[in-house]
Amino acid sequence: MIEYVFLASLVSIGFALYLRRSILKQDEGNEAMKRISAAIREGAEAFLRRQYRTVAYFFIAVEAILITLVYFRYLTIFVPFAFLTGGFFSLLSGYLGMNIATRANARTAAGASRSLNRGLRIAFSSGAVMGFFVVGLGLLDITAWFVFLNYFAFSSLDIAARMQAITSAMLTFGMGASSVALFARVGGGIYTKAADVGADLVGKIEKGIPEDDERNPAVIADLVGDNVGDVAGMGADLYESYVGSIIATMALAVAAGLGLGGVTVPLALAALGIIASIIGTFLVRSGEEADQSVLLMALRKGVFGAAAIIAVLSYFIVVSILGRAHIGIYFAILTGLVGGILIGLSTEYFTTGKYRPTRSIAESAQASPATVILSGISIGMMSTVFPVIIVSASIMLSFAFAGGLGSLQLGIYGIGVAAVGMLSTLGITLSMDAYGPVADNAGGIIEMTGQNSTTRKRTDALDALGNTTAATGKGFAIGSAALTALALVAAYVEQIHLLGKEISLSIMDPRMTAGLFIGAMLPFLFSSLAIRAVSRAAFKVVFEARDQFRRIKGIMKGGSKPKYGRIVDIVTKAAQLEMIPCALLAIIAPIAVGLIMGVEAVIGLLMGSLASGFVVAVFMANAGGSWDNAKKWIEDGHFGGKLSQAHKAAVIGDTIGDPFKDTAGPSLNILIKLMSIVSIVFASFIVAYALV
Amino acid sequence: MIEYVFLASLVSIGFALYLRRSILKQDEGNEAMKRISAAIREGAEAFLRRQYRTVAYFFIAVEAILITLVYFRYLTIFVPFAFLTGGFFSLLSGYLGMNIATRANARTAAGASRSLNRGLRIAFSSGAVMGFFVVGLGLLDITAWFVFLNYFAFSSLDIAARMQAITSAMLTFGMGASSVALFARVGGGIYTKAADVGADLVGKIEKGIPEDDERNPAVIADLVGDNVGDVAGMGADLYESYVGSIIATMALAVAAGLGLGGVTVPLALAALGIIASIIGTFLVRSGEEADQSVLLMALRKGVFGAAAIIAVLSYFIVVSILGRAHIGIYFAILTGLVGGILIGLSTEYFTTGKYRPTRSIAESAQASPATVILSGISIGMMSTVFPVIIVSASIMLSFAFAGGLGSLQLGIYGIGVAAVGMLSTLGITLSMDAYGPVADNAGGIIEMTGQNSTTRKRTDALDALGNTTAATGKGFAIGSAALTALALVAAYVEQIHLLGKEISLSIMDPRMTAGLFIGAMLPFLFSSLAIRAVSRAAFKVVFEARDQFRRIKGIMKGGSKPKYGRIVDIVTKAAQLEMIPCALLAIIAPIAVGLIMGVEAVIGLLMGSLASGFVVAVFMANAGGSWDNAKKWIEDGHFGGKLSQAHKAAVIGDTIGDPFKDTAGPSLNILIKLMSIVSIVFASFIVAYALV
Repeated sequence: MIEYVFLASLVSIGFALYLRRSILKQDEGNEAMKRISAAIREGAEAFLRRQYRTVAYFFIAVEAILITLVYFRYLTIFVPFAFLTGGFFSLLSGYLGMNIATRANARTAAGASRSLNRGLRIAFSSGAVMGFFVVGLGLLDITAWFVFLNYFAFSSLDIAARMQAITSAMLTFGMGASSVALFARVGGGIYTKAADVGADLVGKIEKGIPEDDERNPAVIADLVGDNVGDVAGMGADLYESYVGSIIATMALAVAAGLGLGGVTVPLALAALGIIASIIGTFLVRSGEEADQSVLLMALRKGVFGAAAIIAVLSYFIVVSILGRAHIGIYFAILTGLVGGILIGLSTEYFTTGKYRPTRSIAESAQASPATVILSGISIGMMSTVFPVIIVSASIMLSFAFAGGLGSLQLGIYGIGVAAVGMLSTLGITLSMDAYGPVADNAGGIIEMTGQNSTTRKRTDALDALGNTTAATGKGFAIGSAALTALALVAAYVEQIHLLGKEISLSIMDPRMTAGLFIGAMLPFLFSSLAIRAVSRAAFKVVFEARDQFRRIKGIMKGGSKPKYGRIVDIVTKAAQLEMIPCALLAIIAPIAVGLIMGVEAVIGLLMGSLASGFVVAVFMANAGGSWDNAKKWIEDGHFGGKLSQAHKAAVIGDTIGDPFKDTAGPSLNILIKLMSIVSIVFASFIVAYALV
Repeated sequence: MIEYVFLASLVSIGFALYLRRSILKQDEGNEAMKRISAAIREGAEAFLRRQYRTVAYFFIAVEAILITLVYFRYLTIFVPFAFLTGGFFSLLSGYLGMNIATRANARTAAGASRSLNRGLRIAFSSGAVMGFFVVGLGLLDITAWFVFLNYFAFSSLDIAARMQAITSAMLTFGMGASSVALFARVGGGIYTKAADVGADLVGKIEKGIPEDDERNPAVIADLVGDNVGDVAGMGADLYESYVGSIIATMALAVAAGLGLGGVTVPLALAALGIIASIIGTFLVRSGEEADQSVLLMALRKGVFGAAAIIAVLSYFIVVSILGRAHIGIYFAILTGLVGGILIGLSTEYFTTGKYRPTRSIAESAQASPATVILSGISIGMMSTVFPVIIVSASIMLSFAFAGGLGSLQLGIYGIGVAAVGMLSTLGITLSMDAYGPVADNAGGIIEMTGQNSTTRKRTDALDALGNTTAATGKGFAIGSAALTALALVAAYVEQIHLLGKEISLSIMDPRMTAGLFIGAMLPFLFSSLAIRAVSRAAFKVVFEARDQFRRIKGIMKGGSKPKYGRIVDIVTKAAQLEMIPCALLAIIAPIAVGLIMGVEAVIGLLMGSLASGFVVAVFMANAGGSWDNAKKWIEDGHFGGKLSQAHKAAVIGDTIGDPFKDTAGPSLNILIKLMSIVSIVFASFIVAYALV
């Protein structure tokens, strides 16, 4: 079986390379467009270079700690290597995705100048390049390690002990991916919003010039931000969820006594998902009508098609590998698959201008900025209800289908399988997410090069659609992160058992309760740090931009060009600096709590931050998305249209929503996953040295 | 012992009556002041009359359900009566507190026109009337029930069985108090903020007239709101925490096998607290210097003095009742006592203009409303760290002192005792809280009757101090609510054991996990409903006020008076209507989850909403308090002072903070307590009919 999985990962990478080549063949537009695109690419690469340096320091420090722990026998020799490869492939996924995004933006713009479908295809293909790199590299890395450990490193062990040793070693591989994801998501998130907020405060609010106006010195930094935050950050995040859910489920299979078969199911399911997703991409095409819902349907067809294929064929995977007795596992897969789609639909309802919630925010903008903000917060909080019910139902149903109370370990394996099921369509869902920033960039390029209004209308339609897919993508990311983190916590509990430590899992154990409180608080502290980081970095942008307006005469009249590069540089440095407290928090909190308060408190902490982090993340993503689209709804001519009082109020709402939806909210996914995986890796160390 | 406790409750009520009489003897000021005070009193009573009607309908419905459950043997015959008396005394506490507050406002104003100390004494005494009514009536009710059940109803049972039966019956008494508290806190909270936000939007923002200007048609409603929300609501809330913590601890004493002695300790501690608090009130007096920190120290002396007395004398209570072997219980009491004070100090740091956090919000107001809001949210989130650490430490320490892992039940009893310890100073801490709205009202009356500037300065100083004490009071309320709710959840688990139902307390049980997610979400849903309620009710105020400005000529010039009563009436109706979904949510959620998902899910739900509700409540209270004082800091002449751009931005922050700190935030205390107590009352019904 493993060879087919390996093959599927190669097919995925091959498909990504093929799409990449076909995008690069497209016309890049006129000289002005090429120039802007090059500036964006340069800025994005400058950011990544600096980020890689930070990551390198971080990795050196962590490797030193890991090697020390290996030396003292708290970890196996494979851990430091697994950590490195996890980090490397996660970086690579983000980089490759961002690289093609910065090359596809001008091509999408040029394509849109010829036809809407052409623009859509290029932007979507660019997203697909990242999507298939992510799943391909993820699966490649997992299978390579599996083969190495199974046939070489641990080949002398009997099957049960071997599976045990393999999955234990591989869990730490997720920590590398998670750490990189943290840097990419948080650093990228701070970058993109500091540049965006800074550009808006100076451009739209102070100078009254439109978005993406080339007179704004922060405009290139803003366009760069879309790529480093929404593309590279999203890619690294979901790479991590993807491998995390698969590895955790493999570990849970061993605990459930399913042996090699149970270990193979998530791998086979992932492989099937890749093929289904590739087929799905061919279903995406549009006519010439720039109607949002038609375009959305075009994209949806791809996702639904892939999901349908998986829903049918995964039946055969389960039956052929585990036998008809474990048919419940198949239903657990379906639960995850359906849950992911439902969370997306709920997100769409709360965040698009088509429905009542967003329109009511737009309506409240007529009264004052305060009412816009209060109604956005209220709607955002309300929007957490369905995702929570969906995830809760997914947990209970997948557990009940797979094993139920009579067979706890099987049930928990079912929860892991549901997570893998949800993420099995990742190849194509990620294509949809990563499509957004490319369309956004294309719109910016069109705006800056003053193209004709038909083209602009087309890119506007593509961009608006991108907002919706980005919001549903975030819902999907956090939903899958929740299930993945839960599987990881279960794997952690398993690790503790394996270490021979007796622990209480009772929620009334005061260590657990205290951990629960602290865990529930951490997403708030983390969000606080992230929001503060954006504000501080944005201030630096504002000061520099104001300074340029003052010093460089003739910017406003178009006589001279602002120095875009200086701002790109400033945000890059600021984002790296501001990220440090967030990163330290995620890594130190579970270790410190473990050492001071014991393993029970760690479990409480993980569950508390999982539950509260999930709710806060959904709240922030949806409130932010809804404010954004409420502003767009007013710009479309409702409640007074552009430049009305209502619009001004809505712009303030949107500005507040920016760090909510693009920095703090999505970073919480990483927080909850990374804390779980750090706990796993440091489990034996904490068990040895905990005070309690 | 019980007779001393009974005596202490009578002393408390007697002291409250004595203070009331001495306040009523004070001069009420000139005719204009009397007229305004009468209008406020009339409005407040109109609100309460309508609220009592709503409560009456609600009680009839719940009584019908309870009687049905008694008929089918799911409850004992005492439950419906206990429910009624709990509700009645809670109502009475709120009413008596509000009644004196509306009589003390003009007297405080008149007192302040003679000396600062005189103003302070009257306002503080008014708060103390409520404080001592609350603790006196609470303890009276508990002892009366205890005596009745112990010596009459269950006198035939042996001691162990009797204590068991008594505490079970009495737990339901808390449900009556909780339900009234819900109506008072939520209804009052919606009222006060709808009136405040509405008055500000029309007055300060649209018409540019100062706060408390008599030309504003919403001004009386605004002043009424301080009384019905911050006085009556706070009183009912803390009445409920007070009796809830005592009753829950009594129940936990039985579970811990401490028998009558263990049951007596919380009662004796409460009695001691009353005496200590009375002594504390005599320590409160000020000189003529209107310096905030001097005034604050004057109030602090009272609280710290009372705490010191309790810290010393509770040692003898523990040793004489339980013996030297249980000295750990004494340290658990200290833990709660110190924890309460520390939470207050942390709140003060984050919400007063004296320290960096609030000043940084004021500073960010220079840039735009968006930055004020982002920095307020960031500071508010950051401010959750210390209270969470304090509560977590209190939980672990009081558990460890009282029993530790070797003796779980004793340890959990220790947590309950810590809650009672924290609340033992309630007589005086509540005096400080309830002082605020009286000072606020006095300031409004001075403003509306155009007194000289010395008097106005004095009431401003009293009012500013009131903001601080209100914020620390909220911190104290939520901290004690968290410990009380935790004790209630422990009591719930005990109830389930008594019913002979086998349950899993494992946090990895998927029902528990799913419950945890839903529980973590409920505070968000509840806050969403509360915020929406305020917005909608405030809109009604705005429309009516605008209408009056248009229809009644000469309001702005002072020629004619607006119709204050109409707005009082509109807000009253709106608050009652908007409260319904919040109330239903708190009561239906735990029952519905229990029936559909089982007892394990209820425990998960209670713990999830406890942890997340605590964090959200602290976040909202502190963000709101900080925005309020950031605005005041600017008004004091910083960053451009009144009417600057920064001030306008800060007013928007304050408007958003209003429903955070005075509606949604404090209502969450009730949500978490009420859900626990509803679960306890309906435990046997749910055990019988749960699907899972």
